Amino acid sequence: MTSAAMTTDQTMPGRPAATTIPGASYPRVTADGRVTFRVDAPTARKVRVRPGAVPESGLGPAPLDLARADDGTWTATTDPVRPGFYYYWFDVDGLAVNDPGGRTFFGHGREVSAIEVPGDPDDGAFYRPADVPHGEVRHRWHRTAETGEWRRTVVYTPPGYDDDPQARYPVLYLQHGAGENETGWTAQGRAHIICDNLIASGAAVPMIVVMADGYARPELRSAAWSPEHVRAVVTEFEELLVRDLVPMVDAAYRTRTGRADRALAGLSMGARQALDIGFANLDTFGSVGAFSAPPIEPIDPQTSFRGALRDPARLGELELLWLGSGTAETRVHRMLGDLHETFAGMDVRHEVYESDGNAHEWQAWRDCLYAFAPLLFRGA
Amino acid sequence: MTSAAMTTDQTMPGRPAATTIPGASYPRVTADGRVTFRVDAPTARKVRVRPGAVPESGLGPAPLDLARADDGTWTATTDPVRPGFYYYWFDVDGLAVNDPGGRTFFGHGREVSAIEVPGDPDDGAFYRPADVPHGEVRHRWHRTAETGEWRRTVVYTPPGYDDDPQARYPVLYLQHGAGENETGWTAQGRAHIICDNLIASGAAVPMIVVMADGYARPELRSAAWSPEHVRAVVTEFEELLVRDLVPMVDAAYRTRTGRADRALAGLSMGARQALDIGFANLDTFGSVGAFSAPPIEPIDPQTSFRGALRDPARLGELELLWLGSGTAETRVHRMLGDLHETFAGMDVRHEVYESDGNAHEWQAWRDCLYAFAPLLFRGA
Repeated sequence: MTSAAMTTDQTMPGRPAATTIPGASYPRVTADGRVTFRVDAPTARKVRVRPGAVPESGLGPAPLDLARADDGTWTATTDPVRPGFYYYWFDVDGLAVNDPGGRTFFGHGREVSAIEVPGDPDDGAFYRPADVPHGEVRHRWHRTAETGEWRRTVVYTPPGYDDDPQARYPVLYLQHGAGENETGWTAQGRAHIICDNLIASGAAVPMIVVMADGYARPELRSAAWSPEHVRAVVTEFEELLVRDLVPMVDAAYRTRTGRADRALAGLSMGARQALDIGFANLDTFGSVGAFSAPPIEPIDPQTSFRGALRDPARLGELELLWLGSGTAETRVHRMLGDLHETFAGMDVRHEVYESDGNAHEWQAWRDCLYAFAPLLFRGA
Repeated sequence: MTSAAMTTDQTMPGRPAATTIPGASYPRVTADGRVTFRVDAPTARKVRVRPGAVPESGLGPAPLDLARADDGTWTATTDPVRPGFYYYWFDVDGLAVNDPGGRTFFGHGREVSAIEVPGDPDDGAFYRPADVPHGEVRHRWHRTAETGEWRRTVVYTPPGYDDDPQARYPVLYLQHGAGENETGWTAQGRAHIICDNLIASGAAVPMIVVMADGYARPELRSAAWSPEHVRAVVTEFEELLVRDLVPMVDAAYRTRTGRADRALAGLSMGARQALDIGFANLDTFGSVGAFSAPPIEPIDPQTSFRGALRDPARLGELELLWLGSGTAETRVHRMLGDLHETFAGMDVRHEVYESDGNAHEWQAWRDCLYAFAPLLFRGA
């Protein structure tokens, strides 16, 4: 199908991206994945596009210079980009500026531009809406027992949830990465679309997916990355998850409440939370998924994962221990190998998944969810 | 209570706004409503804050110059601002830039910064979350019959919706203004919190609130404002609403489906849609609410509202015709008077509400919803 590359105006190749604001002309993407950025900045001296600070990004490794036209607009077109979802921003004379033509998403600790580069319709079909029954993405406000603070948690309910008041569902708790929030898995990750498609085809069982803000306190967002910070990010979220979120979800939704029907997974920072918290709460979570877990060099059988490796028999009680990463995220992919070796050496049953060609970006995590979710809640 | 104005660091008065990104220090608001903006732009030559292009804005009428400090940051503090929710952006050497420290919202046809200026806790309590049962805000994906396009519609379900599978609810269709989208009424307007509070106190009956994208086609977003454009915005949304949305909502949710249990309301452009579409579809909508309806000068009894004024007896069949505006939005407030005179002169029963001191901004529309919703669905 060539229509995607055809426009009436040949000076504007491709079409606006799915992440371009409705009615805007830029950014645009061609059928072969070339992205054209444009910004109107007549008084600027230098304008660049900065990819979202991810090594091996699909958008390219380096800032891209835009060229100024006589009308004061600045334009650049990339080489073909592999399909995926990429954070970026403009650097205008040193100032980081979002693209006025694009949607923003919560990432990098702020509202940030991102672009969806579509791939072959067949390859990427798993995260595109299809003519299948759709679940709902529910935003639920609740107050924490500890701090009294109001939090918004995002809950996917599967298609048909409202039709049968007797039906109960297993629950996947699914966590975002550093600098993101509770909206990441739906807005960036399209988890709801992925689940709709998996459930429609029978590949996955109908499940509830709970997506919470993984930062228990706002102050943890702005703290510098350090071992103490990681510890606080894990342990404070553990408190929140076990004391507040799980009871709230089990009270508000028709859940199955046994450990075999509850899973915890996450990406990057969320993968660390899933491993540390999941391993320490095997009575609560029967399955654990880690997508692109941050490197621990080296993994220490005594201290890593808060000492959980000291009791491999206990870890063996997991229904599913699932580890994935992109093949293009060098250090994280190496960590995947280290994790595999570690668990294999301890005879702990686990699954390993490599997301082909993807870096530390959302396309890898969409792909991980698509591979992981079908394996969940198969115990019965 | 003075604690809001006290900080440990006296160089940073007030506290981050509710719309400031978690962990960021600016923008900040003092207890008496002074807003301090700051942006790090070492190479900029001139930086201003631009209020969101609304005459009589609570944020002040004119751009506010920021002053440069030696460290390259630019800062300005406003006079006390009346409570409310205000769009704004930075003008950096002529480039419109969102505040990197603030959340963005969909307004002005793009992602735009906005700041929440809190008022006295008692006065503003109606739009703040309280310890009452909370409904859910559901994001629902559906495909239109006409175009096959996927749309996301936001649906508020009242507290307890999932508890009683027999209960059925009346439905308010609630539309955003020009340049906004289906997220406006919750993200900016806090409609869900307002409804939670009204339902908890017994002031309003439990209802479903449907908030749809009022632009039937993306192209309508970027079109210049003209009589033809207004006509298309109204008639194409009318098609979508009556052919797609109402049947979809009645199929997906436990609604009451009689005209007395269905209302249509909106703000600004949405008010025009509510009046034009509501008047032409009295079999579908039993109540109509117009918040800050755009001026028609003069109202013509033969042609205005697509001729609906020619049959006052038919308009008299409305259960509720409700008209509101802020008192500080001069032209729109005058239109409120014109509407009142028109309907009074035709003996068409209607309610008029003035939102004291508010301009063409969200605080007026929050206030309108709070006054309007209790009057709905009282026929039975």
